[in-house]
Amino acid sequence: MSDTGQESMTRREIGNWWSTGVIRIAPGEIEPRGYPVQELIGQASFVDTVWLMLRGELPDPRQSRLLEAALVAAVDHGPQAPSIAAARMAATCGVGLNSAVATGVNLLGDVHGGAGQQCVELLERMAALRAGGAPVDRVAADEVAGYRARGEYVPGFGHRFHPRDPRRDPLLGLVGEAVEEGVVPGGPLESALALEAALSEGRARPVPMNVDGATAVVYASLGFPAELARGLFVLSRSVGILAHAWEEHGSGARIKGPLPRSVLAEYTGPPTRHVPADRRA
Amino acid sequence: MSDTGQESMTRREIGNWWSTGVIRIAPGEIEPRGYPVQELIGQASFVDTVWLMLRGELPDPRQSRLLEAALVAAVDHGPQAPSIAAARMAATCGVGLNSAVATGVNLLGDVHGGAGQQCVELLERMAALRAGGAPVDRVAADEVAGYRARGEYVPGFGHRFHPRDPRRDPLLGLVGEAVEEGVVPGGPLESALALEAALSEGRARPVPMNVDGATAVVYASLGFPAELARGLFVLSRSVGILAHAWEEHGSGARIKGPLPRSVLAEYTGPPTRHVPADRRA
Amino acid sequence: MSDTGQESMTRREIGNWWSTGVIRIAPGEIEPRGYPVQELIGQASFVDTVWLMLRGELPDPRQSRLLEAALVAAVDHGPQAPSIAAARMAATCGVGLNSAVATGVNLLGDVHGGAGQQCVELLERMAALRAGGAPVDRVAADEVAGYRARGEYVPGFGHRFHPRDPRRDPLLGLVGEAVEEGVVPGGPLESALALEAALSEGRARPVPMNVDGATAVVYASLGFPAELARGLFVLSRSVGILAHAWEEHGSGARIKGPLPRSVLAEYTGPPTRHVPADRRA
Amino acid sequence: MSDTGQESMTRREIGNWWSTGVIRIAPGEIEPRGYPVQELIGQASFVDTVWLMLRGELPDPRQSRLLEAALVAAVDHGPQAPSIAAARMAATCGVGLNSAVATGVNLLGDVHGGAGQQCVELLERMAALRAGGAPVDRVAADEVAGYRARGEYVPGFGHRFHPRDPRRDPLLGLVGEAVEEGVVPGGPLESALALEAALSEGRARPVPMNVDGATAVVYASLGFPAELARGLFVLSRSVGILAHAWEEHGSGARIKGPLPRSVLAEYTGPPTRHVPADRRA
Repeated sequence: MSDTGQESMTRREIGNWWSTGVIRIAPGEIEPRGYPVQELIGQASFVDTVWLMLRGELPDPRQSRLLEAALVAAVDHGPQAPSIAAARMAATCGVGLNSAVATGVNLLGDVHGGAGQQCVELLERMAALRAGGAPVDRVAADEVAGYRARGEYVPGFGHRFHPRDPRRDPLLGLVGEAVEEGVVPGGPLESALALEAALSEGRARPVPMNVDGATAVVYASLGFPAELARGLFVLSRSVGILAHAWEEHGSGARIKGPLPRSVLAEYTGPPTRHVPADRRA
Repeated sequence: MSDTGQESMTRREIGNWWSTGVIRIAPGEIEPRGYPVQELIGQASFVDTVWLMLRGELPDPRQSRLLEAALVAAVDHGPQAPSIAAARMAATCGVGLNSAVATGVNLLGDVHGGAGQQCVELLERMAALRAGGAPVDRVAADEVAGYRARGEYVPGFGHRFHPRDPRRDPLLGLVGEAVEEGVVPGGPLESALALEAALSEGRARPVPMNVDGATAVVYASLGFPAELARGLFVLSRSVGILAHAWEEHGSGARIKGPLPRSVLAEYTGPPTRHVPADRRA
Repeated sequence: MSDTGQESMTRREIGNWWSTGVIRIAPGEIEPRGYPVQELIGQASFVDTVWLMLRGELPDPRQSRLLEAALVAAVDHGPQAPSIAAARMAATCGVGLNSAVATGVNLLGDVHGGAGQQCVELLERMAALRAGGAPVDRVAADEVAGYRARGEYVPGFGHRFHPRDPRRDPLLGLVGEAVEEGVVPGGPLESALALEAALSEGRARPVPMNVDGATAVVYASLGFPAELARGLFVLSRSVGILAHAWEEHGSGARIKGPLPRSVLAEYTGPPTRHVPADRRA
Repeated sequence: MSDTGQESMTRREIGNWWSTGVIRIAPGEIEPRGYPVQELIGQASFVDTVWLMLRGELPDPRQSRLLEAALVAAVDHGPQAPSIAAARMAATCGVGLNSAVATGVNLLGDVHGGAGQQCVELLERMAALRAGGAPVDRVAADEVAGYRARGEYVPGFGHRFHPRDPRRDPLLGLVGEAVEEGVVPGGPLESALALEAALSEGRARPVPMNVDGATAVVYASLGFPAELARGLFVLSRSVGILAHAWEEHGSGARIKGPLPRSVLAEYTGPPTRHVPADRRA
């Protein structure tokens, strides 16, 4: 009825529709990126495996260590974050832990989870300009001026809560060491520091890099494309989301709303009115 | 490599994997449950179409009208509900309106969205007992006693906020009319009223049916299986979720958390401590 | 510990954080947009209520009828759509029906669910140009030329499956009637027809409006902002998503993948290789 | 309007509503479980941090290594899994990478993601019986008989695709070593091996432990509650979900369905029929 009859296709043709270079599966065989999983277990760290799955090759241990630091840094920022709050509320609504985590992850969109990605894009843009011969200070000053002219924040700098983000220094310190050891190129760190200087120039209060900026320096230094900055942030923050969902799950709360029940959301709409008599019953 | 070579299958064999009785699609043809979509447009109401899609046949207009009332009744209960709050927060996080709605819907789990389903199951259980000859009052009293013995709420009765749910009376009124007109059987309404009486017996404050109970009476009367009570609630509450996400989207808020930023979530864990020196750097 | 001690805020101040004009809730009172819910039940249709919740006022019955037609039209397009397929797979994974629906809705993103929104934006842009005095044919030809120059599809026109979308004619017919009756302005329909003519000019095969285009004409005619075109599509397609998830749920399938199990996804990555001996055990 | 006027609450009272022991946040301070984040960065591994967040304390490095192996083992099983397929499809629909990952995670429900959790519950039940003096072989045989009598699979054993899951041996090997070193108790491994023996007794084809069973042995040995087996699986599989979503995102596919477009889903419903003339236009 709904097909055209005689035509047939080989199983391989159909299998092509779902072809992948990420993993090979055959009876008794599971090979992420070509490595037998039984060899990875116990020999590759979880972060090595993250790298392998996203990049296709196992990382150098020093690369892996830098990635590990960035994943540790972004793991949680408490229940004031909508991603965490939504996951905690989900955990009181009678869904599985997986759905509670999915709820939180779903909120890490362009605004809540995208600053790292946008900062990597900025660092990539600066790298291209510097490759063309422009000095880093000039490039940074121009970028900062551009964001200000558009009335936009520079992604990865400043924090509405922390005067100085405590995750900045250790992350940049590790990147600095990796640059010295020749593990990663120095460009992203230089560009980010130049942005920080340009942003703070002439201001009483500096605008230091935040966790999105500092992890963006890590990710850009390690050669991750910008969009994976968000992907890696998702993996990292999933840990916090899970921990909070689990804590809330254990609290026994049911259908937890954002405010204590005794507090009513203010109503700002029209006062009570009535359905006109001439509407159909 | 990953297939076994020569084997082939017809397109129909593969198409079988995704076979469906819900809709027929062919070039130029779209037929939900066999009806050409161009005939449904303008001739079937949206609620008729909901019924058609879930039940396989177009409803009688009086059935449709009753379903319509239940869908209207449950459309929203304000931002104190975690589903609504989560969708509003999502709308400030840089995701599409669809993802904001999905976030809210995802929270309508067993606890937040399941009471109607559980109440239909209860009404079905009572129907089976009554079919065996047990009088409705006895069946209701036994059920209430059972829930109390297990320390559980009777699903669909009582409300932690409304002393009397304003949606109860008009919904039960419409069901009563439909029973009188012979549109639906009277059993579910009788069972629900008997439960209400049994619950309130000997109490100063009655425990009236809430929206989950009253819509469950509608759904059970119309012959919907219990799980679709949740499905229909999802369709109904999606309207409120969308309206709230849209309002919040228009507010310009960014990364809205559950509390004003000036209020800190209380910390109940161990005081500040330090990573032991002997852990690997 | 985490607060600053003496400060306090009134409950109203906190309630402000979640203020809304969508609904007023008080003990015993539920008022969407100011209307007591008990008056809406049985008197407002579900589509009236959708309109009320999104626009703030009850619609004229003829407006409501037009919106109803658009919501009916887009309800389903079968399991080849990723939103439907994902929801069906979810229904075999041990999650609630709500989570299956949320899964499908989450996929109605910019590409899968955004064409209607983009088409309304296009119609709005044309309206502005026409308001400035430009004739509709010229505006349409310029728009089509612009999309072609950018190598982009014109959103809302053409279909990779249907040579002529069967939903086009009845929807445009209803809009035409509503224009004649003075229920809606004629601009959006004129602009869309002009686009269709410009697109088909000089081509053997015309490029007729598809369901996204035809519903966009409805939504633009009714004055919905572009982003709500996606929101309304979400409400409509949720019905199909639910019906498919429910059908699959009833099939008894467990962990249904996209292909029959006998078909293996092709592997395109590196051949089997081994973890180097020098990696840490 | 919606509050009761004079009442006020301290910021701490409101902050209580979102109280947490997971993390302390103050201006300039971020302390997961009391540890300053700047000390964790570079000193705790990502897996240490997962443990810290879920358990409240930093793990012994040998515990962490065992957890790491389980997280590596479950990272991916290819696009035939509905979680992976759904995430890949989502990545072609115009949503952010975070929403694609959330889509996949949302599918790891009781059936698709719950076997590890169910296996830990089984191991816990066996531990309780063994603590009461019952010999492990008898307990295992009784459990297997019980599952068979109920027509249920024993969770964590057998695989519909792999005759022998390649992840079994290395995981159980690591648990065995940890038992010998006194890092973990031997009970869960003994119970699982006894189940495997009981399942295979008298059968030509053994029913070896699968990845859910082997990771359940790890998690139970390390003292994780059963529900966190699902939580940890979510963290692990998120890596595969992300890698697949990223690969698909790079493919340039748009609105990818489960089957090639040339294959039509079979229709099993009623043949074409027409809306009766007496339905309202």
